[in-house]
Formats: sequence, C-alpha cells, structure tokens
Amino acid sequence: MEKFAVLGCGVVGSGVVELFEKNKALIEKRCGKSLEMGYILDLRDFPDRPYGNKVVKSIDTILADKDVTVVAECMGGVEPAFTFVKACLEAGKSVSTSNKELVAKKGDILLQTAKDHNVNFFFEASVGGAIPIIRPMHKCLAANTFSAVAGILNGTTNFILNKMICDSMDFETALKLAQELGYAEKDPTADVEGHDACRKICILSSLAFGKHVYPESVFTKGIREVELKDTKYCEQLGYAIKLIAQVKALDNGKILPTVMPMAVKNTNLLSQVNDVFNAVMTDTDGADRSMFYGRGAGKFPTASAVLGDMIEQVQLDGTISAQTWESADNADFIEDFAAFSACRYFRTTSADVALLTEVFGDVAERTISDDEETVCIVNVEMNAAQVDAAVKALSQKGVQVLAQYPILV
Amino acid sequence: MEKFAVLGCGVVGSGVVELFEKNKALIEKRCGKSLEMGYILDLRDFPDRPYGNKVVKSIDTILADKDVTVVAECMGGVEPAFTFVKACLEAGKSVSTSNKELVAKKGDILLQTAKDHNVNFFFEASVGGAIPIIRPMHKCLAANTFSAVAGILNGTTNFILNKMICDSMDFETALKLAQELGYAEKDPTADVEGHDACRKICILSSLAFGKHVYPESVFTKGIREVELKDTKYCEQLGYAIKLIAQVKALDNGKILPTVMPMAVKNTNLLSQVNDVFNAVMTDTDGADRSMFYGRGAGKFPTASAVLGDMIEQVQLDGTISAQTWESADNADFIEDFAAFSACRYFRTTSADVALLTEVFGDVAERTISDDEETVCIVNVEMNAAQVDAAVKALSQKGVQVLAQYPILV
Repeated sequence: MEKFAVLGCGVVGSGVVELFEKNKALIEKRCGKSLEMGYILDLRDFPDRPYGNKVVKSIDTILADKDVTVVAECMGGVEPAFTFVKACLEAGKSVSTSNKELVAKKGDILLQTAKDHNVNFFFEASVGGAIPIIRPMHKCLAANTFSAVAGILNGTTNFILNKMICDSMDFETALKLAQELGYAEKDPTADVEGHDACRKICILSSLAFGKHVYPESVFTKGIREVELKDTKYCEQLGYAIKLIAQVKALDNGKILPTVMPMAVKNTNLLSQVNDVFNAVMTDTDGADRSMFYGRGAGKFPTASAVLGDMIEQVQLDGTISAQTWESADNADFIEDFAAFSACRYFRTTSADVALLTEVFGDVAERTISDDEETVCIVNVEMNAAQVDAAVKALSQKGVQVLAQYPILV
Repeated sequence: MEKFAVLGCGVVGSGVVELFEKNKALIEKRCGKSLEMGYILDLRDFPDRPYGNKVVKSIDTILADKDVTVVAECMGGVEPAFTFVKACLEAGKSVSTSNKELVAKKGDILLQTAKDHNVNFFFEASVGGAIPIIRPMHKCLAANTFSAVAGILNGTTNFILNKMICDSMDFETALKLAQELGYAEKDPTADVEGHDACRKICILSSLAFGKHVYPESVFTKGIREVELKDTKYCEQLGYAIKLIAQVKALDNGKILPTVMPMAVKNTNLLSQVNDVFNAVMTDTDGADRSMFYGRGAGKFPTASAVLGDMIEQVQLDGTISAQTWESADNADFIEDFAAFSACRYFRTTSADVALLTEVFGDVAERTISDDEETVCIVNVEMNAAQVDAAVKALSQKGVQVLAQYPILV
C-alpha cells in the first residue's frame, strides 16, 4: 500500500484530494496498485470535510512515514514550499508541484536534489494548469531541437483581453469583471503585469533548452496599457491582441524569452484561444508546429495535472527519468531584448499614408484611417532601436505614435 | 551502449534514422546514456545512404543481438509487422510503432505480450503523427474519467475539405491535387472512406476506456459524398465540415465511436484546424476540455513520435509502465449507431420555411434560402430514426432532403 501526502489544502490541494477520491478505482487500475491519501499538511483544521482526520500540522509526520512515496505540493510561494519540498526529496519521496514560482526560481536546485536522491520532481501542473505540456515537451518531443515556444499562459489576462475584443469592455471594466468572477485576485499585479506568465515561460524555456532561465532575465510587459481601440483595430485587420509569453532560439546560440502583448495573426491558432483558456505552441525540427490547449487554472484542472504526475510516479515504482536542467549564468545564455525583432502594428496621429510609407515602407494596403488616426501593419521585422528611430522620424514630421505592438505570425 | 533497430526503411523508417543522426547529441543527453542505430531491416539495399551498411535482411539478426533494447516498427500493415513485433517483445526488446493498423487490430495482444515479457509496446506515432496524444492521455490525464474524445485524425481528408471550403474546389479536383502533392495515395480509399481515421479512433477509444475497440465495431462514413455546396452553406452559417472521428461515453456504460463528416461549429477549435494538420480534443471530468494539435503525418513528424517513445524506453531502463487495455467483446461494450444523437444541418428542395418548421421545430432563424433550396440548422438532437422520420414526413409534403450532417459543438 503506497500513500501520498498533500501539502496545502487550498483550492488546488482540496481538488487533488477530491478528484482522487472520485476516480480512485480508475486511478488504482491505471497505477497497477493501490494508493491511499495519507496526510494533508495545513495549519487550518477541516472538521467538516470527509478527509478532516488526515490533517497534520508538521511536515515531520509526513517525512517520517516510509509508506508515503509521493507528495503533492500545492501551497504556492517560495517558502516554506522550497524547504518542505527539498526535505521530501531528501527523504526519498517524489514530489509533484503546481507551484510555478517555486519551479521558476528553484527548479534547477530541486531537480538536482531529486536526482541525487533517486526520486522525481514533477511539475506538470505548474504551467498551463490541466494542459499536458511538460511531459509532451520532455518526453514526446525529446528527439527534437526546439526553435521556439509561444503561449498564452495566463488565463486572467486572456479573459480580460477577450472581453475587450468581443464585448468592447475597456481594460478596467474587464478587470473588475474578472475579479467578480474569481478569475483575478484582489491585487491583480502578478497576472496583469505579466509576472505569472513570466514564471511559466521560464519553466518552458528551461525545459526546451536545458538551462535554467530565471524570471529576472526575461523582458516582461503586462497588459495594463492595452487600449480598447487597438484591440478593435487589430480585429479589423485580422489580428488579436494577446499576452504572449515566448522564447526563441537565435542563430548565435542564445535564447530570447519575452512576455508582452502581441498582435497575433488570425491564421495562428493562438489567436483563437479565448476566455480563461491557455495554449502553448512549439516549433521543432522534427515535429514542426504543435499546439496544446486547455484550462490553465482552476481547482480540478490543476488537480488533474498534479495527480497525473503522482500516478506516473506510482507506476514507475521509484525509477527516475532523466528530467533535469542545468543551473546557468543567464548573462551568457539569454540575449538582450534589444535584439528582439518582429513585424509591427502601429497606430499614429496622422492619416497621411504617404508620410507613413516614407518612414515604414509599403504599408498602404494595410491601413485603416479615420479622421484623426492611422493604423498600419509593417511587414518588415523591426527591433526596438528601429522602432525608436521610426517614432523619432515621425515625430519630426509632427506625427505621434500612439500605440505599437509586435506581431506573432 | 544500447542499440536500436528500425524495421522498414520507407518514409517513416528513414525519417527515424535521419532525425536521430541529426539530433544524436541532444537525444543522448536527454536519454542520459549513449545510443546507437544498430540495424535497419529491409528487403531493399541502400548502398548510397550513409546508413547503408546497417541494412539486414532477417529479423533473426536483430532478435539475436542482446544490445538491441528497443525496436522501431515502421513497416505498416498487419503482416509481417505483427509477427516481427511479437518476436521482438518476446525477445525482451521494447517496440515503438507508427503502424495504426497493427495497433487497432492487434493492440490488446501486443500490450499483453509486452507485459508478459517486462518490456514496453509504445505507439505514440500511430495516432496524430507528431502530435503528443497517447502519452498525454495515458499519463497526464490518468486521473480523469473520459466523457468524449473527438478528432481530425486524417490529414488527407482534412486537406481536401479545406480546399473545398477555402478554394471552392469540388471533391474530385481537391483529391487530385492531394494526390499530386503526395498527401493522398494513388488508391485513396483508406483515407477518403474513413478507414484510416477509424483505426485511430479505435486506438484512442481503447486507451480512454480501457477495452480494445476493433475497427469493424465502428460506424464509419467517409467524405466522398460531401458536396462543395454544403461546405459553402455551412461556412455561411458558422460551421466547417470536417471528417470527425469521435467516441462518447454514454449513460448506460457503453461507448459510441463514430467516423463521419460533421458540421463543426466555429467556436470549437477543431473547426480551425486546416490543411493536413490533425487535432484531438478530449473531454474529462478533471481537466475539462483539452486539445492537441500538430502534423498528423509526414517523414519527420512521425519519426519525432517514434523516437520520443524510444527515448523514454532508454530513459526507463527496462521498467515497464502499466500501459495496457483489455481484449473485449465489443457487442457488450459498444453502443449501436442507432443511438447516436446530434443537432443537425439539413439542405432540402423547399424554400418554404413554415413547412420545414412544421417538421423540425423552430429553424427559421437559421435558414438560408435561394430560389430552389433551403439550408437549416436543427438545434434539437436527432438520432438516425428521427432523421429518417423527418425525411419521410418532408417527402410526403413533396420536399426532398438533399444533404444532412450531424453537428459537433
């Protein structure tokens, strides 16, 4: 009889327990052996819940029980999660976590600790909630060299942008609705400013390229400045503004991870990912383009991913897979944002297409003009310096650039 | 030093060898050990290729080499593939196959043989080419009860339908183009009549529900009768006609797998899957809706999936995962097609909306009429008997039903 423990009985932790109990017979059949929920670590008591008698207050109880072979960490935050997870791994227990902050900041250390102790550190739930993405990238696409990964990795911001595009809400109204529906926190900073998506692209970048990418190395810009007007113009031109977390492999051997709102062309399936759904697109030399889509958050979707990891652990019976990445000096590995280059969407104060063409080249066919403003798509890749130069050149002609988005094809 | 062997050096087999050689350093790093291509089994010689000296003519050479731990079966067809794969498994070698016919017809036997000999029988490449779908369903979603799986599982027919919808080609012209581009065989029967998609939904059904589903138990209808006219009308109404292979779990405990052209609502991402791309959508109790998208065929995409399996095998170091399903009496397990129920698209000879409303209920808002015909969406689920009754009722009023498609929402 193997047992598992759950650290933290919040939304995800209780979801793990409830989904396990619901599908226990099926899960045990798939595991090929019987499995019991042994402990829940939480400072609170849950006297009214059926699993109330399993609650413990100290990690030591769990560490001391040799029958506990796998632990679900659903506490969130770096501490005490890091200390607890490390202790579990060192005690020979595999860990499955839904904690993206922990993986993004300490993944390299925890993967090495797991390796050193012949156990596994799993984190399928840390990116894209229910979406199978870690295992597909690590296992199914293991024969491939990755050239790019791009995703919609934050459901809250996707919901807000979707409301702007489809229901013509402005940013503040859409954010308020997201908060009312429980999609956004009271303090929405981590979502709205892109920090959450940043942690997730760090994890996917580390996995794709084998070296740890730390959050502070990633250029990150949120959606607070996205104007309703631009979502509408983009839609007319065949684009959708999405918060895109992506990483590209460059010819110089470095990688360039970014998080920022981009105008996604409607031939790219990412442009069709709506509401709170997430999606990840991978470009590789063998498999070419693949996409993974699903619920990026929520009690049972996230619990589904945590339990999937735990089931694999029980099936594996202690054998470790070679899932690991190296600690890295990001200065040598990550290209500066100045090198980021893309086609661009511009909105300016001028309706003079000839003047815009002078600065940007041929844009005439892609403009929409109203009385005061022009919107155009520049189909030549521009980096930040080139954008700055164009803004300056326009300014000298009395034209202001009001908005600018890089394009994802 | 572990070695692998490749059975069959056609498109996929040569892809496996070439992708392996291209990414060898990366693959060995991900495997955590070194790996060599040991043998290629083929009746032909390949004197001009770099791996020409690895070609052998007898399976016995491979069976006798203890260093060969994993074998890629890329021959296609049931025999001699079945005999060779079984012999490999019995000799203690794991097998990864791209052969959907083999898995759909003999999967239960080969999974049991693998289990009996402590090795693995992998088949990620047998469904959806490069798309990670077998491992995500089997591992990542292992905590879930499946309620439905629906997919575009044949690239050739998706290409043809896409050309009809987007380029207004009729079926025969689109088929000819597909043949010219190498997407369709000279004899396109297996693709066009839905047999290929049928084999794949058999595999996904077996995996999702744990019992073998045999191809002859699946209602299968191809795309030969799809008229250009209906693809156009559907598009105007917000639907795309796609060849959908799906399986649903019914309340009576049985499952109902089908392959047929369906009108997919444009809010469903499957409606946006174009060209030769494939996609699979899963509905489960924990993860809710997920989708997996990518190249469903082709040399390197399929090779990517075969190699992914082989890499996992090498990482696992002989430990078997509990991947298996039972042989089954399909009569007890699979519901009759008569029970299949869905909302419907109809095209009739009458433009009399009142008359159609009399038979179908409220359809007025969803009709497009030209001089001779009416198209309508019936938003009430109808099974085959109900469709027949409606056709008969209309016929008695002098109206012919010219086309009819079930709807996928």
